[in-house]
Amino acid sequence: MIVDIATRAYNHTFKLDPIVRSLLDTDFYKLLMQQMIYVLHPKLPVTFQLINRAKDLPLARIIDRRELEEQLDFVRQLSFQKNEIIWLAGNTFYGNRQIFRPEFISWLADFRLPDYELRVVDDQFELRFHGPWAEATAWEIPALAILSELKARAVMKAMSRFEIDVLYARAKAKLWAKIERLRVLEQEGPLRVGDFGTRRRHSYLWQRWCIEAMVEGIGRSFTGTSNVKHAMDLGLEALGTNAHELPMVYAALTDNDEDLRQAPYDVLRDWASFYSDNLRIILPDSFGTTYFLDHAPGEFGDWTGLRPDSKEPVEAVEEYIAWLKARGRDPMTKTAILSDGMDIDTIETAVRHFRGRIGNLPIGWGTNLTNDFRGCMPHFDDRLMHPTSLVCKVIEAAGRPAVKLSDNPTKATGPREEIERYLRVFGTKGMTTQAVLV
Amino acid sequence: MIVDIATRAYNHTFKLDPIVRSLLDTDFYKLLMQQMIYVLHPKLPVTFQLINRAKDLPLARIIDRRELEEQLDFVRQLSFQKNEIIWLAGNTFYGNRQIFRPEFISWLADFRLPDYELRVVDDQFELRFHGPWAEATAWEIPALAILSELKARAVMKAMSRFEIDVLYARAKAKLWAKIERLRVLEQEGPLRVGDFGTRRRHSYLWQRWCIEAMVEGIGRSFTGTSNVKHAMDLGLEALGTNAHELPMVYAALTDNDEDLRQAPYDVLRDWASFYSDNLRIILPDSFGTTYFLDHAPGEFGDWTGLRPDSKEPVEAVEEYIAWLKARGRDPMTKTAILSDGMDIDTIETAVRHFRGRIGNLPIGWGTNLTNDFRGCMPHFDDRLMHPTSLVCKVIEAAGRPAVKLSDNPTKATGPREEIERYLRVFGTKGMTTQAVLV
Repeated sequence: MIVDIATRAYNHTFKLDPIVRSLLDTDFYKLLMQQMIYVLHPKLPVTFQLINRAKDLPLARIIDRRELEEQLDFVRQLSFQKNEIIWLAGNTFYGNRQIFRPEFISWLADFRLPDYELRVVDDQFELRFHGPWAEATAWEIPALAILSELKARAVMKAMSRFEIDVLYARAKAKLWAKIERLRVLEQEGPLRVGDFGTRRRHSYLWQRWCIEAMVEGIGRSFTGTSNVKHAMDLGLEALGTNAHELPMVYAALTDNDEDLRQAPYDVLRDWASFYSDNLRIILPDSFGTTYFLDHAPGEFGDWTGLRPDSKEPVEAVEEYIAWLKARGRDPMTKTAILSDGMDIDTIETAVRHFRGRIGNLPIGWGTNLTNDFRGCMPHFDDRLMHPTSLVCKVIEAAGRPAVKLSDNPTKATGPREEIERYLRVFGTKGMTTQAVLV
Repeated sequence: MIVDIATRAYNHTFKLDPIVRSLLDTDFYKLLMQQMIYVLHPKLPVTFQLINRAKDLPLARIIDRRELEEQLDFVRQLSFQKNEIIWLAGNTFYGNRQIFRPEFISWLADFRLPDYELRVVDDQFELRFHGPWAEATAWEIPALAILSELKARAVMKAMSRFEIDVLYARAKAKLWAKIERLRVLEQEGPLRVGDFGTRRRHSYLWQRWCIEAMVEGIGRSFTGTSNVKHAMDLGLEALGTNAHELPMVYAALTDNDEDLRQAPYDVLRDWASFYSDNLRIILPDSFGTTYFLDHAPGEFGDWTGLRPDSKEPVEAVEEYIAWLKARGRDPMTKTAILSDGMDIDTIETAVRHFRGRIGNLPIGWGTNLTNDFRGCMPHFDDRLMHPTSLVCKVIEAAGRPAVKLSDNPTKATGPREEIERYLRVFGTKGMTTQAVLV
């Protein structure tokens, strides 16, 4: 069956057309983290908060509050389907069978999302999720995807059926032109690109089209998708490892500066008790990549790779290679995953720069894969169709504030005084201010 | 209802999917000419022949002969539907009601296409239509459209559903980029562009999409379509006047050189006994535009306009303007219709060149509107998707050979010795050899 995306988009006006229809419509790393959290921190209360970094975009005036509530309510009544649970238990992930423990699988089978709190402040939605960490964490991706798609739908409501048709035709042509450049890149040497674009996608169906385009265009170089539902439906690899919420919560729980300094390493040691091989990927930038690497115990040289997430990619991987060499490790046996705002230009630059210098340089292509409609509007200004800089972060754990610094201070989150304390503890070596584009 | 063109194209493999489903799916000028022929030359036997000018494209190896026969047979059993006849009789064309006489309308109601003769010679189809002129003439457009679409379908049979989707997305994006340039042009001053792309269209549905795109993009500057079926269905103006077959047949019937020289004028005098105002458009190039204008009796200065069809457009219209001025006519009260292989570049050039210098410069945008898939194939060489230089011409009338010279000797048709006689009679003044692109 061929879905005519333009038709579906046009029909959105007629009834509730759920955006997230399955709890598997989330990123794979959420499930990996959820298992570790469920086993090690079952009762820890946390709060996640969804915010719009672009304060000049009054989302609550663009998106109808009632529609948002309907979508969130729809997801709350979802539970995993039987076939989804069986697939999670029986499928091979990253080359390993039964990556999920039976007790976690049985818990998942009954899992539902906790309640949400929605307020409107200064034309922005303030969306919070309280609950046990293992439950509240699951809101991140569906909440982001819902807001992202509701915004796209709001823009398209003002468009005719024909305008929507042209919009999608142009977006398809635009993505295919990028894929043709990837095809050139793959002829030059090894290339590995996967879809990481769930959270800020234009829409569910559009993400699926983008994935199918990648399969069609660079089949042998396409590594899979972070989206578990698409991975299951399309028989692709589910991709992802871990995220900032782990060190952020571990850090929030510490009682002194010395424990705080150790938190990023403690959390990875817990991770290693669950996952091996290609799932041992360091996310180093929660409190500054340079601090993390400078102070990392020797065992972290054994980890498979690194995923820089807020530093200029070439610079970050150069730093990693130098760090590996200083520790007597061969970069050609290691992996660096690039997933921070990548697009075709930065993919080309990084892949060409590091050929023969690092073993594996997989790209996690996110928002610029699944939500690039710039220049695609048939008539008018397309600013509203640009992806919105939405983030959903843990802000509190066991009543204590959670902080993230990153390598780019404009991305720091948390109360000002806590950010300052963290900056004092971890230092600012290697940090650079950069504009956040997506 | 939204037609997903990619889906339909993919499904072509499954059953007979008729290309021409209505006798109205033809160019409007065919009906205008048919009426004149029916009244003045009811019994004249003629032969039309469809040929592929591109001898290096072995159409009979690309298109299945049986499929071609099925499509031709399907059209042969068609007759006008009742609502179509009522519309022809009741609609206003070029501002006039009842342009078609009641006796012609009744004859049309029972009209069916005559038989065809199909042979394969050197991997080319040789397709001939014999019969009374008023009947055989009606084969031209459906036969051309069928071959053009069958070729496109043959290419798409080797493509996956996804490749077809990308193909159409790119073609839509490409056309819309052209329309954006027309929108700029229309902001600068008057613009009139119509669809003349039935005969070499990619497909029926694609032509409809192109027309809808023009309505959407340049609604107030879009003059309508030469396709009668689309005009009726979409409530647009039906466009067209007369074609080369009229002077070609009139010329073939003459018995001496002096009568031959008069044939192009005789035929237009007959035309003027049927049609007035905006339908009095001179097609001057059958035996050379320069000869036609140099020898035209004074009354032709009263005609509304000129449609050059084989001369470089700016040159042809300059020649027309000079001719008008030499006869004391104001070019600002006249029309020049450009319809020979126009595309966005030549449209821009001509429209900008003649602003303020001629009253009306409508563009008949043909093959480059309805069949431009160059650069749109997702993977491989798209040479096969280029429009084919197919023409369907009258070759014989009452047993005598029919000849066309045009302003471009590479377009001349007819037996060599007859072409030479015509060249002797009409001269070669103002003729230039040009490559024929579409």
